[in-house]
Amino acid sequence: MIKAAIAYAQQNRQSHLDDLLDLLRIPSISTLPEYNIDIQRAAQWVADYLKRIGLHAVEIIPTKMHPLVYGEWLHADPEAFTLLIYGHYDVQPPDPLEAWVSPPFEPTIRGDNVYCRGASDDKGQFLAALKAIEAYLGSTGKCPINIKVLIEGEEEIASPSLPHFVRAHRDKLQADAALIIDHPMIGPNTPMMMYAVRGHLYTEITVRGPSIDLHSGTCGGGVDNPFNVLVRILAQLQDGATRRILIPNFYDAVDEISAEERALLHNGIVTDEALLATTGVRAVAGEAGYTSAERIAIRPTLEICGMPGGYVGAGRKSIIPAVAKAKVSMRLVPKQDPLFIFERFDAFIRSLAPETVHIDVENLGYAYPVLTDYQHPAIHAAIQAYQAVFNASPLFMRGGGSLPFTHDIQQTLGAAIVMMGLGLLDDNLHAPNEKFYLPNYYRGIETFIHYFDILAR
Amino acid sequence: MIKAAIAYAQQNRQSHLDDLLDLLRIPSISTLPEYNIDIQRAAQWVADYLKRIGLHAVEIIPTKMHPLVYGEWLHADPEAFTLLIYGHYDVQPPDPLEAWVSPPFEPTIRGDNVYCRGASDDKGQFLAALKAIEAYLGSTGKCPINIKVLIEGEEEIASPSLPHFVRAHRDKLQADAALIIDHPMIGPNTPMMMYAVRGHLYTEITVRGPSIDLHSGTCGGGVDNPFNVLVRILAQLQDGATRRILIPNFYDAVDEISAEERALLHNGIVTDEALLATTGVRAVAGEAGYTSAERIAIRPTLEICGMPGGYVGAGRKSIIPAVAKAKVSMRLVPKQDPLFIFERFDAFIRSLAPETVHIDVENLGYAYPVLTDYQHPAIHAAIQAYQAVFNASPLFMRGGGSLPFTHDIQQTLGAAIVMMGLGLLDDNLHAPNEKFYLPNYYRGIETFIHYFDILAR
Repeated sequence: MIKAAIAYAQQNRQSHLDDLLDLLRIPSISTLPEYNIDIQRAAQWVADYLKRIGLHAVEIIPTKMHPLVYGEWLHADPEAFTLLIYGHYDVQPPDPLEAWVSPPFEPTIRGDNVYCRGASDDKGQFLAALKAIEAYLGSTGKCPINIKVLIEGEEEIASPSLPHFVRAHRDKLQADAALIIDHPMIGPNTPMMMYAVRGHLYTEITVRGPSIDLHSGTCGGGVDNPFNVLVRILAQLQDGATRRILIPNFYDAVDEISAEERALLHNGIVTDEALLATTGVRAVAGEAGYTSAERIAIRPTLEICGMPGGYVGAGRKSIIPAVAKAKVSMRLVPKQDPLFIFERFDAFIRSLAPETVHIDVENLGYAYPVLTDYQHPAIHAAIQAYQAVFNASPLFMRGGGSLPFTHDIQQTLGAAIVMMGLGLLDDNLHAPNEKFYLPNYYRGIETFIHYFDILAR
Repeated sequence: MIKAAIAYAQQNRQSHLDDLLDLLRIPSISTLPEYNIDIQRAAQWVADYLKRIGLHAVEIIPTKMHPLVYGEWLHADPEAFTLLIYGHYDVQPPDPLEAWVSPPFEPTIRGDNVYCRGASDDKGQFLAALKAIEAYLGSTGKCPINIKVLIEGEEEIASPSLPHFVRAHRDKLQADAALIIDHPMIGPNTPMMMYAVRGHLYTEITVRGPSIDLHSGTCGGGVDNPFNVLVRILAQLQDGATRRILIPNFYDAVDEISAEERALLHNGIVTDEALLATTGVRAVAGEAGYTSAERIAIRPTLEICGMPGGYVGAGRKSIIPAVAKAKVSMRLVPKQDPLFIFERFDAFIRSLAPETVHIDVENLGYAYPVLTDYQHPAIHAAIQAYQAVFNASPLFMRGGGSLPFTHDIQQTLGAAIVMMGLGLLDDNLHAPNEKFYLPNYYRGIETFIHYFDILAR
C-alpha cells in the first residue's frame, strides 16, 4: 500500500506543484478586512481539494471571523489510529511591497524555491500532508489510518475561534494524535522534532500621576513622576545579577528537567556562538546556572517590550508625563499557569506602587505552555518517517515561542501533540520574499506517506 | 518728568492698544520655517516702532536663524543708570487650531482680555516696557535712565543665538541691570518678584542590545533586553523612599538657604493643597525633609520624560527591542554646574551598565541656574514700582523652570537680573486661546514708567 502511494506521489509531482501554485495565488490575508473575499476563496479552494481527493464530511465552518475547513477519511474499524491534521490557509500581509523581487502573490520559481507570501507559512507545509492523503486515496482508494483535517484561516491573527470550536466539537475531532504542521527544519537535510513550546503572558502596566502632562520646571520635585515610579517597580521584577524573576511564587510550578532530556537539548543548535551571531549582542546573558540552550527552552522569561507614554519624539520636551506604561511579556514553561502568574504579577506590582499614583495591570493575552512526551509512539513514528525520507534523525527541540491553540487541542482532545514541519529557518516568514524549498515539498509528501503507514502499525 | 509720562500713557491708551493688535496680527512662529517671512515682518515692526518713538542705533541683527532687534537711548552722562530690556517677538505654533474660539492670529477682545497667540507670551508684556519709553520720549523728549532694548526672535526655540551675541557684544550691551520681561503675576492684582530660576540638564540614555528587534519567544531568556537593563539603571538614580538623587557628587554644590529666605518662599502660593488642585495627583511627593514650596524652588530634580524604543502601539507585540532610550531631565539649583553634573551622570550611568549592551549618554541641552540678590537695589526699585501702581507688594518666588540666556546675561555683562512680568497664570501660554489681561497692559506701562524713574534716583 505504501509503495503505491509513494509511486503516486513521485509520478504526480507536476500536479502537486500546480495545486500549490493555485493556492498560493489567493491573497488570503487574515488581518486586512479588504481581503475577506480572498479568505473565502482560499477556504473554498481547500474544501474543494479535500472533496476532490476523496475526503468525506467536508465542510466550510463559519466563525465570527474567518472559516475553518474540515474533512475526514474514516475506517469502518473504530480501533484504527486517528490522526488530526492541523494547518492554516491564511497568510501575513506582504508589506513592504517594494522589497519583493517578484510580486508577493504571483508564485515565482527561482532555483529550487518558490517565492510567494504563504509559500512556507503555511500553505506549502500543510498541503504536503494533504498530498500524502491524496497519494493513498488516489493509488489504493484508502488510507492506512483515520484522518481528520482541520485547516483554519485565523492563525496569523492569534486563532481567536479555534479554542471554542475544539471545545464545542470534542467528539467530532477526537484523535489519538494531533499533527501540527507549521514548523521549520534545522536545515534542508536536517529535520527538527519540536516537543514543547513555552506559554505566554502579555501584560500592560499603567501608572497615572498628574491629570495632564506637567511642565518639569514649574512642578518638578513636588509630585511623583509616573515614569520614575514605574522604573522603580519594574527594576524589582528581576534580579540584576542572577536575572531571576522576583515575582512571588513565579517558579513554584517550574520543574527541573532530567539529565537525559538536558542532554537531548544540547544538540549543538543553540550555542553561545550561534546566539551571538544571530542576535548581534555584545555578550549573551540570562538566568544564572543555565546554558543558552536551556534559557530559551526550559526557563521562563520576563521582557519589557516597550514603554509608552510621555515624550518619545526627537530632542527635548521637558515634562512630567501624566501617564507611563510598560508592556511586559513573560514566556512560561510547562506547568506554569498564565492566569495564576498574572494574579501574582498583578498583586506584586500593586504592592510595589506608592500611594501617589493610580496603577492598573492588564492581561492583554496569554497562552498555556505545551509539553509532549518526546518518547510518545506518535513522535517516535514521526522520527522514523523523517529518517526514511531524509536519511537523518531529527534534532529534538523545545520551542521558545508559543502556540496558543496547541494547549487547547492537547487538553480538550487528550491527543498527543506532534509538531512536524518542512520550512527552513531562512524562509522569510512574515517578511518580504517568503519562499519554500520545493525539494522538501516533495520529500515532505513522502515523509507524511511514511508517517501514516508507521502510525497504522 | 514722571507726571508728564504718566499723563501721556493715560491719554494714549487707544494707540497703545492699536500698536499691540498690529504686532499680534503677525504670526511670528519661530519653530516653523514657513513662517520665516512673518518672523522678518515682526522684527521689522519692532525696529520701526523703536525708531518711531525715538530710539537710536536701531538695527535688525541677523543670526543663523531669526534676527535680534536692538535700539538704545543714551544720556550724555556716562554715570547714568543703564537698563537692558529683554523680550521676545516670536511665538509658539497655535495648534490645535480647532480649540481656538477666535482665529489665533486675529486679536479679539472679549471682556477685559485680548485673545491671540503671543498676546501674553511675550508681545503684550515687552511692548508695555517699550510704551513706557515712548511715554517719556513722547512727553518730555528724554528718558530718566539709559535704555538698551534687545528683543529676540528665538526664545520659543531655546535662544540658540543669544548667548553668542551677548558675549560678542559685551561692551555694546553693558548695563547695570537687565530687565527680563516674560513672567506671570500671581493674580490680576498681585505682582510676583522672581529672583531665581533653576538650571536644566536634558539627557538621553541609549541602550543598544541586539542588532534588530528579536522575537521574544525564539531568543527570550538568552540575551539581555535593553529595556530590562535600562530600568535597572534608572531605578538606581533616585532613592525610592527619600526621593534623593543618587548620582555621585550631585548635591555637592547645593546650598541650604537661610531661614529668612525660607520664610520668604513660604508665601502661601505653593502649598500641598494648591499643588494637588493644579496637578490632579493623588498625593504630593518629593524629597524628604522639604516642603512642596521648597521642592519646586530650591531643590534639584530628576525626571524621566519618556522612554522611546521598542513597541509603543496598542495591544501586543512580543519583542526584545534592539534599542531602549530614556529622556532624563534634571532641574538644577544655584551653584550646580550642568556640565559637571552631566559628567558625573554620564560616568555613573556607564558604571551601572552591564557588558552585554552598548550604552550612550547624550547631553541634549542645558541651562545654568540663576540666582539674584533679592535685596539688590534694582529689585527693590521694581518692588516700589509695582507698589506705586498695583498698590500691592509683589510676592517673592524662585522659579522652578529655566531661562537659558539669563545666566549668560548675568555672567557676561555682570548685570543685576530683574525678572518682571504682567501675564497671569491662566493666560494659556503655548495652548489654545492665549490671552492677555488688558488692564494690566496699561498698569504695566505705568509700572515701567515708575521703575525707570526710581532707578534714576
